[in-house]
Amino acid sequence: MLVGRVVGEVWATRKDPSLEGLRLLLIRPLDVEPEDDPSRPRGLVVVADTIGAGVGEEVVVAYGRAGRVAIGRGHDLAAEAAVVGIVDDRSGEELR
Amino acid sequence: MLVGRVVGEVWATRKDPSLEGLRLLLIRPLDVEPEDDPSRPRGLVVVADTIGAGVGEEVVVAYGRAGRVAIGRGHDLAAEAAVVGIVDDRSGEELR
Amino acid sequence: MLVGRVVGEVWATRKDPSLEGLRLLLIRPLDVEPEDDPSRPRGLVVVADTIGAGVGEEVVVAYGRAGRVAIGRGHDLAAEAAVVGIVDDRSGEELR
Amino acid sequence: MLVGRVVGEVWATRKDPSLEGLRLLLIRPLDVEPEDDPSRPRGLVVVADTIGAGVGEEVVVAYGRAGRVAIGRGHDLAAEAAVVGIVDDRSGEELR
Amino acid sequence: MLVGRVVGEVWATRKDPSLEGLRLLLIRPLDVEPEDDPSRPRGLVVVADTIGAGVGEEVVVAYGRAGRVAIGRGHDLAAEAAVVGIVDDRSGEELR
Repeated sequence: MLVGRVVGEVWATRKDPSLEGLRLLLIRPLDVEPEDDPSRPRGLVVVADTIGAGVGEEVVVAYGRAGRVAIGRGHDLAAEAAVVGIVDDRSGEELR
Repeated sequence: MLVGRVVGEVWATRKDPSLEGLRLLLIRPLDVEPEDDPSRPRGLVVVADTIGAGVGEEVVVAYGRAGRVAIGRGHDLAAEAAVVGIVDDRSGEELR
Repeated sequence: MLVGRVVGEVWATRKDPSLEGLRLLLIRPLDVEPEDDPSRPRGLVVVADTIGAGVGEEVVVAYGRAGRVAIGRGHDLAAEAAVVGIVDDRSGEELR
Repeated sequence: MLVGRVVGEVWATRKDPSLEGLRLLLIRPLDVEPEDDPSRPRGLVVVADTIGAGVGEEVVVAYGRAGRVAIGRGHDLAAEAAVVGIVDDRSGEELR
Repeated sequence: MLVGRVVGEVWATRKDPSLEGLRLLLIRPLDVEPEDDPSRPRGLVVVADTIGAGVGEEVVVAYGRAGRVAIGRGHDLAAEAAVVGIVDDRSGEELR
């Protein structure tokens, strides 16, 4: 799993029918890179969201079977990543 | 899942028979890296496409079981990544 | 699997019900990068922990089915990464 | 899946019995990094090959179940990556 | 799969019971990065070993189901990476 910030949403009209009505979010993974080196974020990921995360919120993302469990449409689904929790708080190092 | 731009197509005559007639695209994942640092794209990926994405379009790509669901040839298939949607629009940060 | 240091904890009230009561840790993977180049840690990961790792401890993390075996709640679970061991000792190169 | 160039072969006498007689290739994934920054290839991968790729050829590589489908020895096999096609041609950006 | 060098061993007393008696190695993946840029090794990985690799040896590592096939304890195991072969020789580019 990873923790990331919701940075946007993605819309697709032409898509696999199993994704109909499923909200797709753009997530930027959080990291501990120092402030003076903003050039190396990990790549953006796209995840399904059925929990209701908003842009700017931090979320926990899970993959594969775990992601589809959170989506709740069974496993014949053309998605393998989903928000599984919206972060209230976290301890430890500053992330960005 | 990831969002990327279709940058080309791949043709292979010698291949696993399960891939016969399947279109293979080269995808460059989109990222939020700053404009002045074009040297670190994430690696290219190769994905099957049954939805009809064209070169230059942005697509959502899914992996594993999810990718094969979109391909629609069952799971005894020598492919594990596919276009699951063609992006109409997205909100959030500028990507490249 | 990877070896990493526990750098914090994550709390989420709005989450998939299958994660109820499960402790989520933030882990920084260890690496062999030289001391003078602290800018490129691998990305943080979020993992479930049922073994009882504390902040600052080094842990071994496993993914997918293996992670869920360690969690012990079956495979209909919205998590795919877990602490599978707490490191007592290791030989070899200095890591950070 | 990824596209890469065959850069060598690997031989192992002590190995899992399920790999007996299986050819293992070293593959360097292709990328779109500019010519003046050769220092960041993605990591090498090792893949099984039953199609007959030669050193210097470009191949498409698939992972997991998809890789084992191409290998054709069933799924109780200690390998999870395989050549699924040998590239005849590709369109799009120059890769290296 | 990847090819890497065994750089150490990991010991854990508090761990998932399914890992009891299983040897865990620290592996540094090999790469083709030039000598003058030693700062970007891929991250270390931790793998189970039942073949008997020693520190300093090069090994082939497989993941997921393939790794567990090599471990030989079935699939209810809290590990997803294993040595599947010890490299005798390889052709191609110099690696480090």
